[in-house]
Amino acid sequence: MTLEETAEKIQTMEIRGAGRIARAAAQALHDHSQTIHPADLLTYCQEMEKAAGILVATRPTAVSLPNAVNLVMKPLKKESELQSAKKNLEERACSFITRSEEAVNKIGKIGAKHIRDGDVVLTHCNSEAALGCILKAHEQGMNIEVYATEVRPRNQGHITARTLSDAGIRTNFIVDSAARHFMKEVDLCITGADAITVNGSVINKIGTSQIALAAHEARVSFLVAAETYKFAPRTIVGERILIEERTPDEILSKEMRKKLPYVTVRNPTFDITPADYVDYIITEAGVFPPEMAYTIIKEQLHWDNDDMSSDLPYCEEE
Amino acid sequence: MTLEETAEKIQTMEIRGAGRIARAAAQALHDHSQTIHPADLLTYCQEMEKAAGILVATRPTAVSLPNAVNLVMKPLKKESELQSAKKNLEERACSFITRSEEAVNKIGKIGAKHIRDGDVVLTHCNSEAALGCILKAHEQGMNIEVYATEVRPRNQGHITARTLSDAGIRTNFIVDSAARHFMKEVDLCITGADAITVNGSVINKIGTSQIALAAHEARVSFLVAAETYKFAPRTIVGERILIEERTPDEILSKEMRKKLPYVTVRNPTFDITPADYVDYIITEAGVFPPEMAYTIIKEQLHWDNDDMSSDLPYCEEE
Amino acid sequence: MTLEETAEKIQTMEIRGAGRIARAAAQALHDHSQTIHPADLLTYCQEMEKAAGILVATRPTAVSLPNAVNLVMKPLKKESELQSAKKNLEERACSFITRSEEAVNKIGKIGAKHIRDGDVVLTHCNSEAALGCILKAHEQGMNIEVYATEVRPRNQGHITARTLSDAGIRTNFIVDSAARHFMKEVDLCITGADAITVNGSVINKIGTSQIALAAHEARVSFLVAAETYKFAPRTIVGERILIEERTPDEILSKEMRKKLPYVTVRNPTFDITPADYVDYIITEAGVFPPEMAYTIIKEQLHWDNDDMSSDLPYCEEE
Amino acid sequence: MTLEETAEKIQTMEIRGAGRIARAAAQALHDHSQTIHPADLLTYCQEMEKAAGILVATRPTAVSLPNAVNLVMKPLKKESELQSAKKNLEERACSFITRSEEAVNKIGKIGAKHIRDGDVVLTHCNSEAALGCILKAHEQGMNIEVYATEVRPRNQGHITARTLSDAGIRTNFIVDSAARHFMKEVDLCITGADAITVNGSVINKIGTSQIALAAHEARVSFLVAAETYKFAPRTIVGERILIEERTPDEILSKEMRKKLPYVTVRNPTFDITPADYVDYIITEAGVFPPEMAYTIIKEQLHWDNDDMSSDLPYCEEE
Amino acid sequence: MTLEETAEKIQTMEIRGAGRIARAAAQALHDHSQTIHPADLLTYCQEMEKAAGILVATRPTAVSLPNAVNLVMKPLKKESELQSAKKNLEERACSFITRSEEAVNKIGKIGAKHIRDGDVVLTHCNSEAALGCILKAHEQGMNIEVYATEVRPRNQGHITARTLSDAGIRTNFIVDSAARHFMKEVDLCITGADAITVNGSVINKIGTSQIALAAHEARVSFLVAAETYKFAPRTIVGERILIEERTPDEILSKEMRKKLPYVTVRNPTFDITPADYVDYIITEAGVFPPEMAYTIIKEQLHWDNDDMSSDLPYCEEE
Amino acid sequence: MTLEETAEKIQTMEIRGAGRIARAAAQALHDHSQTIHPADLLTYCQEMEKAAGILVATRPTAVSLPNAVNLVMKPLKKESELQSAKKNLEERACSFITRSEEAVNKIGKIGAKHIRDGDVVLTHCNSEAALGCILKAHEQGMNIEVYATEVRPRNQGHITARTLSDAGIRTNFIVDSAARHFMKEVDLCITGADAITVNGSVINKIGTSQIALAAHEARVSFLVAAETYKFAPRTIVGERILIEERTPDEILSKEMRKKLPYVTVRNPTFDITPADYVDYIITEAGVFPPEMAYTIIKEQLHWDNDDMSSDLPYCEEE
Repeated sequence: MTLEETAEKIQTMEIRGAGRIARAAAQALHDHSQTIHPADLLTYCQEMEKAAGILVATRPTAVSLPNAVNLVMKPLKKESELQSAKKNLEERACSFITRSEEAVNKIGKIGAKHIRDGDVVLTHCNSEAALGCILKAHEQGMNIEVYATEVRPRNQGHITARTLSDAGIRTNFIVDSAARHFMKEVDLCITGADAITVNGSVINKIGTSQIALAAHEARVSFLVAAETYKFAPRTIVGERILIEERTPDEILSKEMRKKLPYVTVRNPTFDITPADYVDYIITEAGVFPPEMAYTIIKEQLHWDNDDMSSDLPYCEEE
Repeated sequence: MTLEETAEKIQTMEIRGAGRIARAAAQALHDHSQTIHPADLLTYCQEMEKAAGILVATRPTAVSLPNAVNLVMKPLKKESELQSAKKNLEERACSFITRSEEAVNKIGKIGAKHIRDGDVVLTHCNSEAALGCILKAHEQGMNIEVYATEVRPRNQGHITARTLSDAGIRTNFIVDSAARHFMKEVDLCITGADAITVNGSVINKIGTSQIALAAHEARVSFLVAAETYKFAPRTIVGERILIEERTPDEILSKEMRKKLPYVTVRNPTFDITPADYVDYIITEAGVFPPEMAYTIIKEQLHWDNDDMSSDLPYCEEE
Repeated sequence: MTLEETAEKIQTMEIRGAGRIARAAAQALHDHSQTIHPADLLTYCQEMEKAAGILVATRPTAVSLPNAVNLVMKPLKKESELQSAKKNLEERACSFITRSEEAVNKIGKIGAKHIRDGDVVLTHCNSEAALGCILKAHEQGMNIEVYATEVRPRNQGHITARTLSDAGIRTNFIVDSAARHFMKEVDLCITGADAITVNGSVINKIGTSQIALAAHEARVSFLVAAETYKFAPRTIVGERILIEERTPDEILSKEMRKKLPYVTVRNPTFDITPADYVDYIITEAGVFPPEMAYTIIKEQLHWDNDDMSSDLPYCEEE
Repeated sequence: MTLEETAEKIQTMEIRGAGRIARAAAQALHDHSQTIHPADLLTYCQEMEKAAGILVATRPTAVSLPNAVNLVMKPLKKESELQSAKKNLEERACSFITRSEEAVNKIGKIGAKHIRDGDVVLTHCNSEAALGCILKAHEQGMNIEVYATEVRPRNQGHITARTLSDAGIRTNFIVDSAARHFMKEVDLCITGADAITVNGSVINKIGTSQIALAAHEARVSFLVAAETYKFAPRTIVGERILIEERTPDEILSKEMRKKLPYVTVRNPTFDITPADYVDYIITEAGVFPPEMAYTIIKEQLHWDNDDMSSDLPYCEEE
Repeated sequence: MTLEETAEKIQTMEIRGAGRIARAAAQALHDHSQTIHPADLLTYCQEMEKAAGILVATRPTAVSLPNAVNLVMKPLKKESELQSAKKNLEERACSFITRSEEAVNKIGKIGAKHIRDGDVVLTHCNSEAALGCILKAHEQGMNIEVYATEVRPRNQGHITARTLSDAGIRTNFIVDSAARHFMKEVDLCITGADAITVNGSVINKIGTSQIALAAHEARVSFLVAAETYKFAPRTIVGERILIEERTPDEILSKEMRKKLPYVTVRNPTFDITPADYVDYIITEAGVFPPEMAYTIIKEQLHWDNDDMSSDLPYCEEE
Repeated sequence: MTLEETAEKIQTMEIRGAGRIARAAAQALHDHSQTIHPADLLTYCQEMEKAAGILVATRPTAVSLPNAVNLVMKPLKKESELQSAKKNLEERACSFITRSEEAVNKIGKIGAKHIRDGDVVLTHCNSEAALGCILKAHEQGMNIEVYATEVRPRNQGHITARTLSDAGIRTNFIVDSAARHFMKEVDLCITGADAITVNGSVINKIGTSQIALAAHEARVSFLVAAETYKFAPRTIVGERILIEERTPDEILSKEMRKKLPYVTVRNPTFDITPADYVDYIITEAGVFPPEMAYTIIKEQLHWDNDDMSSDLPYCEEE
């Protein structure tokens, strides 16, 4: 697949999902590097920069895409010789892909340490990382019970329920409105994240902040399981995460809407959970309080403030 | 319709809804009083007590039913002459029915005074009393905008949206999970109630307490519109409101459930909003803070503690 | 002074202040009753009702005025004989005036019991009732220190400082903005009230709610000293207290405003302190939690819901 | 201007304001370096250290002064050759001055991203950095409305109102006490800072903490706009920010005070807003949660713990 | 036993405990009434008033004592004939004693309705009324687990543990400091009360307020089980409950204290739990929110404000 | 003392206390290095790694032990020559011991800056670091008053009271339950810590979290004084701090327990105070907000995530 093909597939959302996009971009940079035959280091750098630019431009609001590209590209500036520059860049691309693939597994292992035998865990939406923690704890022989929400309007809770039931984990399936009602039965909440800002706000599936608030009210721990590439560097330079609204069809059919001329459907995909309601963020690089987001962006994603000049708002598709 | 017929219709839920049940019971007592021809006051009282007992027994957990029966029956004990006893009881029955029918209208008038021109109001579920406040404010020429929730699993929000759209009120239709996300746009929340306890807790459609919590977090007023017969006297003698769970079919179909052997659907109809999150309760008898529930039960519903010996838990059907 | 003269003086604000208005109205009813020579009880009642109507209409948003008139007028309905009706009404008027004049003194005695030797008390604005508590405690030999705010824009704090200094009470004079900064030094806050609603909200000088919030944050008790006629009965039937805005001249001079074409001065006289931030209300009839407002209105002010049909918003001048 | 002249002007407050002091000190070091002609690197270092000591000693409680001096002086220790040592130091001084001058502009650009079209913004006191955010958003064509406080006792709000009105921004001018009353109309608060401690507490104009508390109560975002040199390094080694009290004349005139022998005017310039009530700090180096203060001090101000041995308390003049 | 003997035994604390004191006083009035042979009603009233005065004076700070005396004595004023006056008073005394003896049993029955099968209940100190609720629930076959605190310094928790163990109820015995640590395991807290003020504050064993705070933090219900005679009427007229401090010997022995010349033992018997942290008060007359204290004092204890002229502070011995 | 002897003494708790264990381990590594005579660097490294492993294994849940060993051992990997490797390691061991011994003194100096003349300080348990701050402030001539708790079940408060009394500091000695009752008299709380997790939770003597909660409720600052080696690195990789329970004998004697067959004594040594209730952590390296724990672990303890592969839970003995 050429770099242009990958770029197009990301743009048309054929390739979608924070992890898959990130890995596709890294692979495309790797393959592109192998394909081209530049005369010297400078030409190589220019070619690769151009390629990186094409990739990043495909989804200007994605969070994982520039994180992946930056991790692969950034050390290039310090190279002094063409062959090793190529080799190192290709290695970084491979290494990013491997680490990204292992991230959910690592998060599951770390997260499982925060679950105790007999715990009742509530989760919202269908996050691979969050479910990974629960499944790992179950695999380790713990007796876990789960509350899973329906997740209107797209009912991702059905997939979550299927995953948990197939694994043999006792699951209570509830409407989103019932989270506070059952919160007193819950020991721990775990959700995923779509993006995390520099001040530790968690952007995740609509309804998450409401559950976090109810957990906070009842002194129930609220954990977020997220790969490090979910942290949004450009929030450091002031970008706000744009909360997309999806088609009204997901909530009211066209026929119903016709009969309701004064009704507007509002369908935001995400909401924002403030850091105050989040106890831990579990990443593949360890456990952090949400206030540490800046440090993670610097240490794990290797961003410098200088790298962030774009004025594009950030937002990851689901 | 004989008393027995009414009793059966209440029992089989042919007659349903807090207001309709209450009025049907008052009507049945009225008609029964007209039908019977007792020899003396004592016989009359015994006959009527028996009739009252039959009615109350049909829905042992209803709140409005014993309130209505008590209001009609109670002064009977003080009567000293058959004819006037009959006449007074029948008048009380008629008067209860009239007042009950006018209650929603009165609540609307009072509630509209708490809405200001330009206000954005959030409502949950489909409460005649709550909508009455909004519709009345709109009728008075105020420019109102509403957020209405979907209300899973039975989607009563569709009816609410229809009522508001038909009245020409701009309405935003959102999933239940989005209440906190939009709360910063909201000036005022108004919901109905299914029952109110002696310490001012509001039993209402699942999800209400979550919205009240989010309103409290954002310093948004939360009003409850409820007829006085929604106050639950026996909570004074310790009864707790039982939260019924309805059929799982409302949430997951039988076929889906078959494939999910480890999944249990939990489908509570109501949840409990603590008095701390309720600013006002608007009744047809005026505006009260929730902590005044005891006084309303005494003053408006004329219960004595002695009247409350039953050990049945309370709960009103939807 | 004829009733018409009193009415005019109330209307033109020659007579002002909640207590003075209330007593003037009672006196006017008393004098009017003595002046007129009706043929029979019915005529007397009609005359007096008319007089009462004239008085109440002078300041439709006052709280103390209808409370005074109602206390004098209400039992008239139960009279059956002209002479005793006259006599009783005139006695009620005198009795109201006496009790009103004694109220601040009684409040001071009760309030002083809530102050301990060595206490540091913060007060805002210049409330006779609130200062009464502090002065009484000082008279009883307690060593009291006060924080008094400046009270922009009309600097009522200067009068408060004068009163306290003249009494020999050590007083710290601070700008309104400094209340939270010094709150950790404070043992107790006491303010007056202009009106109190049925759900225990306290309408008082702008800035009061901010101080109550800061007291709540620091677990400092917040007391309100208010005569019972400050309770606003018509809030039971849904009236909201209108927060008047006074002339911008109090804040920015006309010349300054001319140079600031995009600037609008907002000058609300009062703000609303929620019951949650008020520990006690001290009245001449005793100490109550704010949630008891309904009971005070019924028990002390003798209002029935039926008496309250007017649709006028409430608000007391300063 | 000789170094001694600059030092005197800082000491006598002829040069005042955090930014101006910092830049004057950097300029003085630069000029001093150009003036002196040391024989060798050691002599140069000793001369410059002496000069730095003179400057820092002029205002022992300032925050920006030692930050500026440290940024210019610190790398000197690593130099090995006189000429380049001189050149580098002079370049650092110039660079500091340039960056400091650009900081407000950068903060404005970043802060404007946190304002949305149609937002109502509250500000307190007259902070160039905070106003910069609002003005920049207005320049970008956003429709902004502002609430500006009067800021007793020195009425800096008048200057703020003038700046906003001149820019054509609709502004509501209110007394400091009215902040909570209008908070429900506000989307966002932005203020400046005089100093920020290692645990993210914001020292700013008296009244700021009260507004931040009211914003927190109403789920309104509270942003602080501050140049990085406002962060107070010595709070790491335990120094507390001293809150100066200014002359009582600003609040009560001498004549008034004479008549009030028991009254003491308390006139603190600043108060302390805890990190819990601050959502973001916007610096020229990016956006941070207040808990990140330590990292900013290390990363942006290049302090080592070893540099901080002084026992002087910190406090910046207004 | 003569009235004087009873009075002495109350004074010397031979008769102690809120309930026993109250019943002894009622019995003494009953017996005294039977003993004396007054010539007429006036003499009888004078004799009995004198007797009542002697009894109340024995423990001026007790709460239950004046409540009992008032309930027996008050209707005497309305009597018009000696023999029926005597008979009625004696009946009231007997009736008070019976009701008092039945109160704990009734409270147990009501309180048990608030416990669910499988609940974990935390209790503090050794309250007959609170334990009554737990024992009754256990008797009804519910599976209850209890956390009982040690209750320093007098270790009343040992008696509680004995009572619960003897009843066969699984009990976890913990130090007072561990209440918050285990709060997440607890479904419900129940304690007794020594006195309840007009604004619903609960005076109870030192440590209660700390547990109520921790329950509130974790959304755990906090119930108070208290006979109606624990409500303190004179708090209406401003009396504050005095918190006695007991002998230091209970905490540090005399020898230890001798070696610690700078150490003062502070040993308060009670603390004050604010109404905000109390969900229900369970009395023999029903369940009430704490804000209803005024209504209970009026309705159940039959106090008029006029009855309360004394200036004595209130406090009940343990 | 050979390394094996030290290891045994740590294992058998002959050597105990976080500081003493840490220093003993550093000394043992130092002495071991001097004792052995390896042929080359590789052999030396292998020998020392083995020795380190033996030490760490003695108390697998200690926090200070691996911190000390890591600080001494870690740079060894970068050495290239045997003699300097030996010398450097031995110097690091000595330096760790010195710094550890000076840490309490440094903490005292820093902490004293946070105490003001006249302050009332509450402390819990008997922490050398926390007392150091108080004693230092007293030494500096400040007038300090202390509230010290009893600290059931092992009464460490007796030692605290002794230390304070001997120093001539006025001390109030209270039962643990009385902390909230006296909190309004307190200006500042200071406690020690047994361990601090990556998200700033403080593990300390049972009861600490309850006091921190009560301080938070009353806006009283809560400081933790802790040497940097109390921070628990492995919480970054997900380890949870295990809360040990000690023998029931400390709470109820064997004979008492025999009579209480349904009673289980629960005796946790520590509880967990969330970062939200902690204002500052004072270490010998400076003052930090608790959210900075990750940075302290990295910067001061020099841990890399790679160093932390063990799966052992952490917990320090008292």
